[in-house]
Amino acid sequence: MNFELLQKDPKSKARAGKITTDHGEIETPIFMPVGTAGTVKALHQRELKEDVKAEIILGNTYHLYLRPGLDVIEAAGGLHQFNGWDRPMLTDSGGYQVYSLKDRRKITEEGVKFQSHIDGSRHNFTPESVMDIQRTIGADIIMAFDECTPYPCDEKYAKNSMEMTHRWLKRCCDRFDETEPKYGYDQTLFPIVQGSTYHDLRTKSAETIASFGREGNAIGGLSVGEPAEMMYESTDLVCSILPEDKPRYLMGVGTPSNLIECIALGVDMFDCVLPTRNARHGVLYTSEGIINIKNEKWEKDFSPVDPNLAGHVDMNYSKAYLRHLIRTGEMLGAQIASIHNLSFFLWLVKEARAHILQGDFASWKNAILPKLSNRL
Amino acid sequence: MNFELLQKDPKSKARAGKITTDHGEIETPIFMPVGTAGTVKALHQRELKEDVKAEIILGNTYHLYLRPGLDVIEAAGGLHQFNGWDRPMLTDSGGYQVYSLKDRRKITEEGVKFQSHIDGSRHNFTPESVMDIQRTIGADIIMAFDECTPYPCDEKYAKNSMEMTHRWLKRCCDRFDETEPKYGYDQTLFPIVQGSTYHDLRTKSAETIASFGREGNAIGGLSVGEPAEMMYESTDLVCSILPEDKPRYLMGVGTPSNLIECIALGVDMFDCVLPTRNARHGVLYTSEGIINIKNEKWEKDFSPVDPNLAGHVDMNYSKAYLRHLIRTGEMLGAQIASIHNLSFFLWLVKEARAHILQGDFASWKNAILPKLSNRL
Repeated sequence: MNFELLQKDPKSKARAGKITTDHGEIETPIFMPVGTAGTVKALHQRELKEDVKAEIILGNTYHLYLRPGLDVIEAAGGLHQFNGWDRPMLTDSGGYQVYSLKDRRKITEEGVKFQSHIDGSRHNFTPESVMDIQRTIGADIIMAFDECTPYPCDEKYAKNSMEMTHRWLKRCCDRFDETEPKYGYDQTLFPIVQGSTYHDLRTKSAETIASFGREGNAIGGLSVGEPAEMMYESTDLVCSILPEDKPRYLMGVGTPSNLIECIALGVDMFDCVLPTRNARHGVLYTSEGIINIKNEKWEKDFSPVDPNLAGHVDMNYSKAYLRHLIRTGEMLGAQIASIHNLSFFLWLVKEARAHILQGDFASWKNAILPKLSNRL
Repeated sequence: MNFELLQKDPKSKARAGKITTDHGEIETPIFMPVGTAGTVKALHQRELKEDVKAEIILGNTYHLYLRPGLDVIEAAGGLHQFNGWDRPMLTDSGGYQVYSLKDRRKITEEGVKFQSHIDGSRHNFTPESVMDIQRTIGADIIMAFDECTPYPCDEKYAKNSMEMTHRWLKRCCDRFDETEPKYGYDQTLFPIVQGSTYHDLRTKSAETIASFGREGNAIGGLSVGEPAEMMYESTDLVCSILPEDKPRYLMGVGTPSNLIECIALGVDMFDCVLPTRNARHGVLYTSEGIINIKNEKWEKDFSPVDPNLAGHVDMNYSKAYLRHLIRTGEMLGAQIASIHNLSFFLWLVKEARAHILQGDFASWKNAILPKLSNRL
């Protein structure tokens, strides 16, 4: 993997760059649609490419490990072959999902024992096994096995957890470095900064993570319920420590406003289920604001969801039709809304990138931010 | 509407023809995907056109009348404008859905009083109101308001019901002929033959329906639980009476084998929810037979669902991936399977038509029939 820093914004910490992987290039800043079980919900791979113009998508290690299982993915020749997505992919480490199991998991220094949410079967993730699993899934970028602390989290727990995450990172790196990719293309490992909302812990974690000298770095444990201002503070702090010449990935973030604010703090990569999950409930993000399509005011509005987007769903379907589909629970409603929201998220980061490159990001940001959270 | 009979098969009653409407041409025999609530479930209109190659789709009067409601459809300028489907459309009369309500409807000579399955609200369909509703929905082909009898049905009930359907047809025609289309393009009304499985009633009904001299005719009340042989007998009988120079539409039929058998009896048009409904449950129709994709045998089968189909879903997704999606309940599974099944149904009628035109339909039929019901 290669990262090229192309331009820094003069009035903020925003940057435009380019990541090159064996499956192609990613222009940063970028938003990565989440494809939990090897599918971005309700979208064909063709639509992700041609309509959304996604450059990289995510897969979830926990879900893929359980279903279809590693033997199927390996027999297919990796996840790219299995699902037909031939551009870059990133997998999380499964940690976040495992911790969400709450009563069905136990964390020790060795790793995490957990029960499947599907059939209650017992499994064991360790830093080493998670590296092996991600080698088998075969994403271009894989994530270290960390503990994602909840919010709020007492300082002692946060400190102990962070230190364990750092020890686990050492084990992840050792295992990763002594193994080879399985399918003839390169993989790279991103470590994850933790430390909850404590500035001294975040500082310590960012310094430790940076010292591993991997090809990219991630910020975890944010967007877990803390106020947005706290998330921005931690992100700003961590970005100031992480090396400038490597991409920075803020995990699980966020709303359109969050993206723009965090791009301004120096983040290059984002992922979030928000655009697809909210789409299924009829919440649409547009260049003029947020639409709840279930509202009666859209009943006879035959204009497009977002006249500023040129994709096929915005060209061919009206708000009134989409409202009808969402209200009647028709699958096409979720399909249209998901394509729209992801297209908008990708449009937004592309716009941000264009304004960074032409040097007027700060003024563009000030102009667009009020619109992004405007309720239409 | 215009119907041109292009070719008759020398060894069966199969025919190839062409229907011309103000929204374009339909090559017969044709299968019409069902778009109950103004959407063929899980398919974008673009996919219906470019992948499935649908030439005409159905809408359901009952569902569209309840949601989004006539005021919305009329404000949009008709269903074509509302859902963005610019090719021909056909609406049923709502009768079939209303009778399915069982305890929530009452049939009298005047019409049917029923309660909405959504909110229990009370409504009234008459032959006249159903014509007005279908004028407002704006399909190219609209259906008479009939009573669809169940199977089995005692002869007395079948006879009385059929006679009422004939009286209702007169009222439908009167209302239709004294009203104008609302959106500047032509509409045509198809009457429906009833008579349950009684040959004398079917004969009487076919003669009566034919005597109205409409531009096309439909056969209703079949595929409601009777054995396939009984359906073929009634269809054969009715086709022998209905005029040759007008299209014949067999409502609610059926499996791929049903289609081929009934094309051989002289049917030109079909509709059925089978390909889309079964798709959502993982049942796939292919040129080699029927696949239950949930079966373990497909777990590591990375070949396409049907190598003889050239559409994007068969080119880009494997059986193993589709199996994974259907098993995990991912929407993309239903989407892929629905596109596949509809593509196959359209491929099948196109093949039938090509063989009618080149004069070898009968031998092609004999070769393909065993494959169509083969369980893979």
